[in-house]
Amino acid sequence: MFTHTRKLQYNAKPDRPDPLMARRLQEALGGQWGETTGMMSYLSQGWSSTGDEKYKDLLLDTGTEEIGHVEMISTMIGYLLEDAPISDADVAGDPLKAATLSGMDPEHALVHGLNAGLTNPNGAAWNAGYVTSSGNLVADMRFNVVRESQARLQVSRLYNMTEDKGIRDMLKFLLARETQHQLQFMKAQEELEEKYGVIVPGDMGDIEHSEFAHTIMSFSDGTGSKAFEGQVAKDGHKFAYQEHPEAMGGVPEVKPADKRLKNNQG
Amino acid sequence: MFTHTRKLQYNAKPDRPDPLMARRLQEALGGQWGETTGMMSYLSQGWSSTGDEKYKDLLLDTGTEEIGHVEMISTMIGYLLEDAPISDADVAGDPLKAATLSGMDPEHALVHGLNAGLTNPNGAAWNAGYVTSSGNLVADMRFNVVRESQARLQVSRLYNMTEDKGIRDMLKFLLARETQHQLQFMKAQEELEEKYGVIVPGDMGDIEHSEFAHTIMSFSDGTGSKAFEGQVAKDGHKFAYQEHPEAMGGVPEVKPADKRLKNNQG
Amino acid sequence: MFTHTRKLQYNAKPDRPDPLMARRLQEALGGQWGETTGMMSYLSQGWSSTGDEKYKDLLLDTGTEEIGHVEMISTMIGYLLEDAPISDADVAGDPLKAATLSGMDPEHALVHGLNAGLTNPNGAAWNAGYVTSSGNLVADMRFNVVRESQARLQVSRLYNMTEDKGIRDMLKFLLARETQHQLQFMKAQEELEEKYGVIVPGDMGDIEHSEFAHTIMSFSDGTGSKAFEGQVAKDGHKFAYQEHPEAMGGVPEVKPADKRLKNNQG
Amino acid sequence: MFTHTRKLQYNAKPDRPDPLMARRLQEALGGQWGETTGMMSYLSQGWSSTGDEKYKDLLLDTGTEEIGHVEMISTMIGYLLEDAPISDADVAGDPLKAATLSGMDPEHALVHGLNAGLTNPNGAAWNAGYVTSSGNLVADMRFNVVRESQARLQVSRLYNMTEDKGIRDMLKFLLARETQHQLQFMKAQEELEEKYGVIVPGDMGDIEHSEFAHTIMSFSDGTGSKAFEGQVAKDGHKFAYQEHPEAMGGVPEVKPADKRLKNNQG
Amino acid sequence: MFTHTRKLQYNAKPDRPDPLMARRLQEALGGQWGETTGMMSYLSQGWSSTGDEKYKDLLLDTGTEEIGHVEMISTMIGYLLEDAPISDADVAGDPLKAATLSGMDPEHALVHGLNAGLTNPNGAAWNAGYVTSSGNLVADMRFNVVRESQARLQVSRLYNMTEDKGIRDMLKFLLARETQHQLQFMKAQEELEEKYGVIVPGDMGDIEHSEFAHTIMSFSDGTGSKAFEGQVAKDGHKFAYQEHPEAMGGVPEVKPADKRLKNNQG
Amino acid sequence: MFTHTRKLQYNAKPDRPDPLMARRLQEALGGQWGETTGMMSYLSQGWSSTGDEKYKDLLLDTGTEEIGHVEMISTMIGYLLEDAPISDADVAGDPLKAATLSGMDPEHALVHGLNAGLTNPNGAAWNAGYVTSSGNLVADMRFNVVRESQARLQVSRLYNMTEDKGIRDMLKFLLARETQHQLQFMKAQEELEEKYGVIVPGDMGDIEHSEFAHTIMSFSDGTGSKAFEGQVAKDGHKFAYQEHPEAMGGVPEVKPADKRLKNNQG
Ligand SMILES: [Ca+2]
Ligand SMILES: [Ca+2]
Ligand SMILES: [Ca+2]
Ligand SMILES: [Ca+2]
Ligand SMILES: [Ca+2]
Ligand SMILES: [Ca+2]
Repeated sequence: MFTHTRKLQYNAKPDRPDPLMARRLQEALGGQWGETTGMMSYLSQGWSSTGDEKYKDLLLDTGTEEIGHVEMISTMIGYLLEDAPISDADVAGDPLKAATLSGMDPEHALVHGLNAGLTNPNGAAWNAGYVTSSGNLVADMRFNVVRESQARLQVSRLYNMTEDKGIRDMLKFLLARETQHQLQFMKAQEELEEKYGVIVPGDMGDIEHSEFAHTIMSFSDGTGSKAFEGQVAKDGHKFAYQEHPEAMGGVPEVKPADKRLKNNQG
Repeated sequence: MFTHTRKLQYNAKPDRPDPLMARRLQEALGGQWGETTGMMSYLSQGWSSTGDEKYKDLLLDTGTEEIGHVEMISTMIGYLLEDAPISDADVAGDPLKAATLSGMDPEHALVHGLNAGLTNPNGAAWNAGYVTSSGNLVADMRFNVVRESQARLQVSRLYNMTEDKGIRDMLKFLLARETQHQLQFMKAQEELEEKYGVIVPGDMGDIEHSEFAHTIMSFSDGTGSKAFEGQVAKDGHKFAYQEHPEAMGGVPEVKPADKRLKNNQG
Repeated sequence: MFTHTRKLQYNAKPDRPDPLMARRLQEALGGQWGETTGMMSYLSQGWSSTGDEKYKDLLLDTGTEEIGHVEMISTMIGYLLEDAPISDADVAGDPLKAATLSGMDPEHALVHGLNAGLTNPNGAAWNAGYVTSSGNLVADMRFNVVRESQARLQVSRLYNMTEDKGIRDMLKFLLARETQHQLQFMKAQEELEEKYGVIVPGDMGDIEHSEFAHTIMSFSDGTGSKAFEGQVAKDGHKFAYQEHPEAMGGVPEVKPADKRLKNNQG
Repeated sequence: MFTHTRKLQYNAKPDRPDPLMARRLQEALGGQWGETTGMMSYLSQGWSSTGDEKYKDLLLDTGTEEIGHVEMISTMIGYLLEDAPISDADVAGDPLKAATLSGMDPEHALVHGLNAGLTNPNGAAWNAGYVTSSGNLVADMRFNVVRESQARLQVSRLYNMTEDKGIRDMLKFLLARETQHQLQFMKAQEELEEKYGVIVPGDMGDIEHSEFAHTIMSFSDGTGSKAFEGQVAKDGHKFAYQEHPEAMGGVPEVKPADKRLKNNQG
Repeated sequence: MFTHTRKLQYNAKPDRPDPLMARRLQEALGGQWGETTGMMSYLSQGWSSTGDEKYKDLLLDTGTEEIGHVEMISTMIGYLLEDAPISDADVAGDPLKAATLSGMDPEHALVHGLNAGLTNPNGAAWNAGYVTSSGNLVADMRFNVVRESQARLQVSRLYNMTEDKGIRDMLKFLLARETQHQLQFMKAQEELEEKYGVIVPGDMGDIEHSEFAHTIMSFSDGTGSKAFEGQVAKDGHKFAYQEHPEAMGGVPEVKPADKRLKNNQG
Repeated sequence: MFTHTRKLQYNAKPDRPDPLMARRLQEALGGQWGETTGMMSYLSQGWSSTGDEKYKDLLLDTGTEEIGHVEMISTMIGYLLEDAPISDADVAGDPLKAATLSGMDPEHALVHGLNAGLTNPNGAAWNAGYVTSSGNLVADMRFNVVRESQARLQVSRLYNMTEDKGIRDMLKFLLARETQHQLQFMKAQEELEEKYGVIVPGDMGDIEHSEFAHTIMSFSDGTGSKAFEGQVAKDGHKFAYQEHPEAMGGVPEVKPADKRLKNNQG
């Protein structure tokens, strides 16, 4: 069960409106790697967790924090849309203002009354195909590190797309939290790898066709990846390199389907 | 530019048809973490690469291999659908056969003439929201490790969902390749982290509000995550733990929007 | 069965082309609350209807009218795209024209040859996730009122985004029809509520845990919603207010999953 | 900013596992009208709110409660999937068990390790196209009433699809909360209608072509909707009825597009 | 503008309910190549048409007919869902009935109250990504032939999936109309090809690098396509065959991106 | 199995960067009819093929070539994004540059580090709903002709949207290959039609209600389509014309659903 305070976790107020930054910030709200993806992934993983409370709580703590980040970015977008132009009349004759109107998300005004939507900057609705919750914590902790890495990369880029001190203040806070989140999930990942093995999942090594498990196969004519040859992999084995990998599987011959399906294959 | 041999990279022939396994294997073909996601992510990253050939070629080699995995799984699904029932008449009176017909993907027969579709087992069309290509190789190598981890986890589960020797033979090969791919992308990740830093991206540490960068904030009343307190993070700092994180941001007050938008907020 | 006249239900011709308004009008065509959503929802509800002809016909009448509104807006978009710029050469050196080209939907020219697409202004394809047809007419009449409310709100905003007399003439007609449609669906809703009860569905009141059915629970620290306390709800009961709602459900403890799934939970 | 307790708002434990009910409950989690839609809609509306605290807090209170409902249903699905069959071997020879395996969501085991996903029962990923936050509170309160109506309808149907006492206990609680939420949003709607008018938005009545604002137009040959003729609409006017509505708009004639677009229209 | 008669274009009543056929028929309603795709494609093309009335009217006639096909299939699905089981209690102990419940679309009961939804048999919402309206009638007439071909193929398969005389009666009618629609669009296509050329679009032949316009390039090691060598193409030229196509484009070298984007490419 | 050369099939280098053309070219990469759709459709059809090697190899040859086209366009987009502006500061005060920034895809910089994404110009993720692989080669060859027609139409339009010699050089090559692909698939289509009949599928003519198979029914009041009357269809029959098609199906009467579903129909 959750409770909410009207106060934000951190400042989310720009120095001045900027509807183009409002559009860009939608990435952090409703994009593939935005805060909503973090929120729903960590909470789902936390609710699914059946093991050590250390990891379960870490997931629930962080997932709950992320709802507050969704809130901060929604708020910031609202501020940035204050006084935005909404019609040609508002910009008439002024080419810089006309460019602003052209660069805005038209749904910010038309659909949301100058508020945030749950989309990316191109207006694509956020969807749960971005979320991961597999039941396997090694795999999911790795996913979480990626979520925080891609998100922090995007926040860094957003930082360089504006000079506004207020926006940058919020982004500096998010950068720091994403540092923390990268580090915490890496730590959890390492501990879980120690217990279950560095390969996910860790107990199929005897089952797999292991003769193919340490060979870089070169399917492209660049030779750069030969540089891995002889390097030691994280599981202690050395990488081999196969320049011309063999097609071992033969030519397939599936039966024609039931005539009732009318495949008419020639 | 690409060329193709009709021969498969490895065997992809089951001992006998099994339309329910055909449906399950769609996850490996058109699911969030299936081979198509690997193929399109690695190729996109490879084409975008502007740095060391070692990484560019690794991506292009592996992306090209994955097209062959898409091919193997499509082929396997075709074999598994041989002789599948397509109507109530085919199963009439036999409850086990009726259950098979009910558990099949009805589009396998109706839309694809008993062949694979580019969907997951629930018939959701594969979409590029699953793909990642960010331009930042540290972040993307981490993503690639996740792709191979989630994929290998699913292949392991698929292995346990059938006793068919032919299917298992193919899955054992995929398991091994996914071991290799996990290891190679981890190795690349480590080398790139050494160059650019363990946090993605590595050069924002002086910019972020660093006082928030090493603290686990407890937003849930479980106390499990306190166990991280004092542990050493991958960047050498120790984690602090904040039991009651403060709301530092105040209550937001965005201006009402332009009256022309008719927000009627009460 | 349907028939069609080439004549439009009402005028749909602008005074002059305006490709930015063409883009905005896509909301009314292919957006979440646009005419296509009305058309498909009302027709589906009408076809599903098994009760009083009064409601069935109302739905089929209105659904059929909406096809004509889809037609009007498609036509208007076609007019608005006449003579639109399609290349940098068409706008070269003129920053106002350049802004126009930048603000257009690039697919209007490239995909549709300067005609409407079935998308919203951000190019998101209309999808049936916007449609509602539940089988329960009380719930669906309420949905229909919302459809007409959100649509009329957007038409009002569109009205304020242009000075073009021709566009405004069409919008004034749509405003009036959306007034009518709001009123008619409200009337149907009221009649159906009288028959089935004000809560949807109306016959579960004895089954629900009614001690929780008239209490505003405060999960946020704002105290504004306390103002509902003691007010009379539409079913005649008074609202209570619970400042600190209890977590009554205990801490869940789901069993770890079958080992074959390799959850590796730590 | 949000905080979380590990305790659930209410009981969410079934008497026994039932993987088919697990699949059905996905509707309440990740379907068009499920709890996630409520959560994201009310929170977005609350964060966008710039008016009376009474409504802003109501939205934030309820949106926060809904996160807890998402949690309850995710938890319930986890319980219901305990001991579920995952392979043909688990059900072999038993047609009732085979039917269970066929009726399950195959991704529950394969993708989520027997936990909930953020999808509907057909595996369609939840997406933000289900969310509404328009900036206009009259319209949005109406939407919220619909959300609670459709959700309660589905919960009522779920109640009739199982005899399990534990599931029913949770559903009885949700029914009650959905009664409360219907009532509170209706109350807010009524108050806002009093202030802004019963038509959304309320100040375009002088602008619309009002001669078309109170006429049911019959586009279908059923005559049922004639029964509205003369009834008094919520704004005090009477409904007229037009049996053969005129096509007033003429036949459109858009210009052929620029030859560079190669429309080749015949 | 459209009008509607309550009478169906043709019979759409099964001899007896069959909820599995109801699910399958969703393909014809809301699948990629179903009636909705026909309806929206032909109407869009008709509204966009600026040329010969012969084609414009053909498109509008057929698009309008398709709305009636959507209506017939929705109606048929409603009939087929009569008396369908909705809970385990309805099927308890009967494995054939249990298989039926497992094979049904669970949303038919839960979301639509035993009526059709606007989805395919796997519950994927219909979306406008299936629609084509390009402005070029040669290309679009070809698309229309494909729409009718894929649709008729699926109807043929549906025919073989049931013995029900009532369903088959409706399918026989649809088969005939799809014959007509294939033929009419082929005729239009041929006439338009005569005017504009057999290649779409017809006036770029002098611009293209024509030395690559009549050569089958063999990128796979099968040699079957060599059989086209020397055959006469529809434009009168003969096909050449290139066994080992050259990579003419060199190795690309894009510049590293602006450092502010932090690509960290290694 | 596939192999790759780093060399491109043909030149893909513009004379100078142009981020607006980069956005437009996304249509050819990730749009409904772009190269990815060709690649996945032809490969799927090829892998599904069980008939004459002539067609199977044609599909696999062409599908493999298309991967190389995806590569060329991705590469071209990368070149076009070199030196693109990423922030307001980069364009400040210059209205033409401001228009450029406004017209760019903001995700090119923010998500992909100035590289291509797998989307269309409006940022909609490519999805497998664009792909067709039906098992019936007559239908699918027709689809393939459409794919090449729509793609070539778009390439022609792209050609007219730029003066850049480098872009045009690549487009001229693609135009030629799309000529070849149209011709080869038409040839295959013709041969298959000869074998299986001109209607898809060819053996249902005796089953369909043939009295409706050669009549243009006029559902719109335009009379243009009467011009087909008496023309000879491709199967040798003449088209009839029915001015006022009859509604033959009666008014449907589906039973009200089970009371447990609470349809409350009035
Ligand atoms: Ca965050
Ligand atoms: Ca693979
Ligand atoms: Ca309307
Ligand atoms: Ca709820
Ligand atoms: Ca049809
Ligand atoms: Ca191509």
